[in-house]
Amino acid sequence: MLQQLFSPSVQHTVDMVGIFVFAISGALLAVRKNFDVFGIAVLAEVTALGGGLFRDIVIGAVPPAAFTDLGYFLTPLLATVVVFFLHPHVERIQRAVYVFDAAGLGLFCVSGTTKAYDYGLGLTSSATLGLATAVGGGVLRDVLANEVPSLLRWDRDLYAVPAIVGSTMVVLCIHYDALTPLTTALAAVSAFALRLLAMKYHWRAPRAWNRRSTVREE
Amino acid sequence: MLQQLFSPSVQHTVDMVGIFVFAISGALLAVRKNFDVFGIAVLAEVTALGGGLFRDIVIGAVPPAAFTDLGYFLTPLLATVVVFFLHPHVERIQRAVYVFDAAGLGLFCVSGTTKAYDYGLGLTSSATLGLATAVGGGVLRDVLANEVPSLLRWDRDLYAVPAIVGSTMVVLCIHYDALTPLTTALAAVSAFALRLLAMKYHWRAPRAWNRRSTVREE
Amino acid sequence: MLQQLFSPSVQHTVDMVGIFVFAISGALLAVRKNFDVFGIAVLAEVTALGGGLFRDIVIGAVPPAAFTDLGYFLTPLLATVVVFFLHPHVERIQRAVYVFDAAGLGLFCVSGTTKAYDYGLGLTSSATLGLATAVGGGVLRDVLANEVPSLLRWDRDLYAVPAIVGSTMVVLCIHYDALTPLTTALAAVSAFALRLLAMKYHWRAPRAWNRRSTVREE
Repeated sequence: MLQQLFSPSVQHTVDMVGIFVFAISGALLAVRKNFDVFGIAVLAEVTALGGGLFRDIVIGAVPPAAFTDLGYFLTPLLATVVVFFLHPHVERIQRAVYVFDAAGLGLFCVSGTTKAYDYGLGLTSSATLGLATAVGGGVLRDVLANEVPSLLRWDRDLYAVPAIVGSTMVVLCIHYDALTPLTTALAAVSAFALRLLAMKYHWRAPRAWNRRSTVREE
Repeated sequence: MLQQLFSPSVQHTVDMVGIFVFAISGALLAVRKNFDVFGIAVLAEVTALGGGLFRDIVIGAVPPAAFTDLGYFLTPLLATVVVFFLHPHVERIQRAVYVFDAAGLGLFCVSGTTKAYDYGLGLTSSATLGLATAVGGGVLRDVLANEVPSLLRWDRDLYAVPAIVGSTMVVLCIHYDALTPLTTALAAVSAFALRLLAMKYHWRAPRAWNRRSTVREE
Repeated sequence: MLQQLFSPSVQHTVDMVGIFVFAISGALLAVRKNFDVFGIAVLAEVTALGGGLFRDIVIGAVPPAAFTDLGYFLTPLLATVVVFFLHPHVERIQRAVYVFDAAGLGLFCVSGTTKAYDYGLGLTSSATLGLATAVGGGVLRDVLANEVPSLLRWDRDLYAVPAIVGSTMVVLCIHYDALTPLTTALAAVSAFALRLLAMKYHWRAPRAWNRRSTVREE
């Protein structure tokens, strides 16, 4: 058991913050897609809880935390209410939303990795599931909104890489028996900072080499 | 254990009817999307069984009922055959199909809620899974057909609300120890009737307040 | 227990080949959709492992093989590297890729069916899960790429039918107690050959009868 690096209440507060900011991003996309209030709530829930739900089903932690902790379910509804009434204001502070989303990314890649390792997965698999926890909700959000997942698009700033860095730092710490509250926080902060830098400087990942004109642009 | 409010054969017949009408709606969309006969069968199966499959995976009831009861698998194939040969006639009775779909919605939100509660979930989570059981198949149907889920669109008559009402009535009955065959049937009939009224009077849910012109219409 | 028809190393090599060729098909679609290198990797992983992941979650084999065997995870990354640097060459040998994909289809429908039966599912359910194992990755690939799954489209050569034939041959062999390495290989080869013939002669499945002009073409 790795857990209990932090007190449960600290861990829970951190989870709630991550869930709230992810839910905001889902709700805002729903408003942009012109969905009604139930569509906004569904997209908020899916974005906030989808990644952790996938992780829990894969590692066999059923029923998943999303269905056993009432706070996990109610927090996205709170985000729905906020966006429903205040969305022009929320959009105006879009920059702040992105910063919070980056914080959610850092928190979820770390907590997803440690939970997967706790359930007996290997180091590589744990890091992969940490990545899936962090980005899975956003992918489901885009699929439900019938858009190409922004995770996959080349014209978006780096999103997977910061999460991969955070997950990898955690499994390296586990491997070298150096996982402490300090190193865990460091991994989350590294992912967070890397995502902020990627947004500021528009870092992007390369596309395949030798792209020819016969490749359709879409 | 809540179950066995009804005799197993009554419960099973009710399930089969719900599965059949949901399968018809999936098969009709497949015809409209110009899919071949296998595409029709896949969409019929997914629409009919997707919601229950999701519920069973989440609560840890594996293998899910969809894969242990042959009738669950064969009923959508029967719907496929009906639509394949008779789809102009089925479309002509589209109104009847909608009525049956509303019946399926009522039945599934109730049976999904009670099954989730039986597997140890809390009241709120059980109601949520009841809702997911009722609407999940339709969402998967639309995702596979590469359309925005009609559940999320503001220009569709209320669909989630009747299921939410049905699920909530069930958990309230559980909470007040009043779940009987009568109250269970009442919850299903309420969801059914509410959906019919929503279709008749085109009740719709509100979109976000203060929608500005900068929001893209899609 | 049916397994161990083949030595574990033979089985594992066969799995790796199937995973590699499916990953190539996912990576090529990602290049065509103009995804960046991480999008290519995600689509390669999802295409190669999605079908087996779905099967393992349904039968309760968690954590799924995709997360316990490092080779399963690394093979799609190898395919990503190959496509990233050599994709014009890979496209030039598209015909070879299709042949390998057909081989993957044959291998996966057989191995998926036997694994599902081993976990206690009935014959029909096992065959259905074998089909889902073989085609599930491709469906997820198309959903993530925001395209109508090619499995469902009438203007594609038969893809489900060969897998259905292979899965059905396996369950018939199980039923008649005739499952040997020879008959297993025969089922895989039959699915493989049928898919090659379908591509060569452009066999297609029928669409619904009496399609009227009022049906929207999409």
